[in-house]
Amino acid sequence: MNSETRLVEVRTRILKDNDVTARELRQRFRESGVYVVSVVSSPGAGKTLFLEKTLTALRQRYRVAALVGDLATENDARRLAQADVPVRQITTGTVCHLEAKMVQAALGDWNLGNLDFLFIENVGNLVCPATYDLGEASRVVLFSVTEGEDKPRKYPTIFHTADLAVITKMDLAEAVEFDADQARASVQAVRPDMPMLELSAKTGQGMATWLEWLDRRSGRGGNPPPR
Amino acid sequence: MNSETRLVEVRTRILKDNDVTARELRQRFRESGVYVVSVVSSPGAGKTLFLEKTLTALRQRYRVAALVGDLATENDARRLAQADVPVRQITTGTVCHLEAKMVQAALGDWNLGNLDFLFIENVGNLVCPATYDLGEASRVVLFSVTEGEDKPRKYPTIFHTADLAVITKMDLAEAVEFDADQARASVQAVRPDMPMLELSAKTGQGMATWLEWLDRRSGRGGNPPPR
Repeated sequence: MNSETRLVEVRTRILKDNDVTARELRQRFRESGVYVVSVVSSPGAGKTLFLEKTLTALRQRYRVAALVGDLATENDARRLAQADVPVRQITTGTVCHLEAKMVQAALGDWNLGNLDFLFIENVGNLVCPATYDLGEASRVVLFSVTEGEDKPRKYPTIFHTADLAVITKMDLAEAVEFDADQARASVQAVRPDMPMLELSAKTGQGMATWLEWLDRRSGRGGNPPPR
Repeated sequence: MNSETRLVEVRTRILKDNDVTARELRQRFRESGVYVVSVVSSPGAGKTLFLEKTLTALRQRYRVAALVGDLATENDARRLAQADVPVRQITTGTVCHLEAKMVQAALGDWNLGNLDFLFIENVGNLVCPATYDLGEASRVVLFSVTEGEDKPRKYPTIFHTADLAVITKMDLAEAVEFDADQARASVQAVRPDMPMLELSAKTGQGMATWLEWLDRRSGRGGNPPPR
């Protein structure tokens, strides 16, 4: 057996371990009645500002909190803490994705029964996080107008495993000559009928639709949609 | 031995295999007198436009070619082919980085003695490509003004292994309120004295400095700078 074959086998085993932990987490989230949303994107697509605005808007009506994954630095946790909600940072070192065990460790004995929504910001990466279930009820994939319309076709796996695609930085759409029709076609080519939103966390455009999407899921911690 | 430990061991073995192949490639590049530059960045930082403009400018004076890595699609190879230079696509499937063996396979029996410069565009990812030597003489890391000034601090490994940092999409700097001083400080914090360029492939700003950087390396295929 060569190294490549061995690696695939070991990866498969780790994924199975991850799935067991993810199942435990999902059970815990359901019992606590917290709706968990994970957010994935490439670095710089605007996850943190998006979450900052989301947390600030939601905390008027809901009890919300966030876990933030990064290779290094606690910058994002500091930024999100400005929304005045509980935030915990997960530092992964050289690992390019969060794993269910990292989420479990970061949660510790946190009383999730006190929460309506928990957001998990994954490491900035359009590849690695795709295959790691974190027990979330919904996974949201972000990509910005500055990244180019063909990102879904180039990184299909992450779009396959997500429940909602959000195009960010719409305020820059004109400056970068963003072609929304082409971007939508690219998403639909990879995942027909995938729900999509277009927004700008900076100007607030589209945020109301996103908050309504969350509203419809509040109190549904016990009924995550099937994957 | 648990799965995690085993994975680390297997990864180490694969890296060693990769280093052996990378050494063979570097030897081949040196003997052929071709200067090889690899380009890494997150998805959407502008690698392809940057290379398109670079190849178009260089081919007036040099014999140039490119290898392009992507998970899926041959979009980038098609785009680069417009520069009217030889281009080969490497499709990695679900692998988040190029490996030396993929480069070797893509090159096949290509007569590199006919080339002055060969560019290798890695898969869009700021994490995985860091630890895979491709035999290149120089590695260039790109990040765009739209990604945020703190990317070097958040993805330090890729900056540690690169020889030049290029800030792209400078034409959007004002629109996104990009703080160049803060970005430079972030690079220098991770890698003091790292050379840096700021440019816009769209407007051409800074491209002359980049082309001079390459000029100084032409005919130096035999003398790659030490890592």
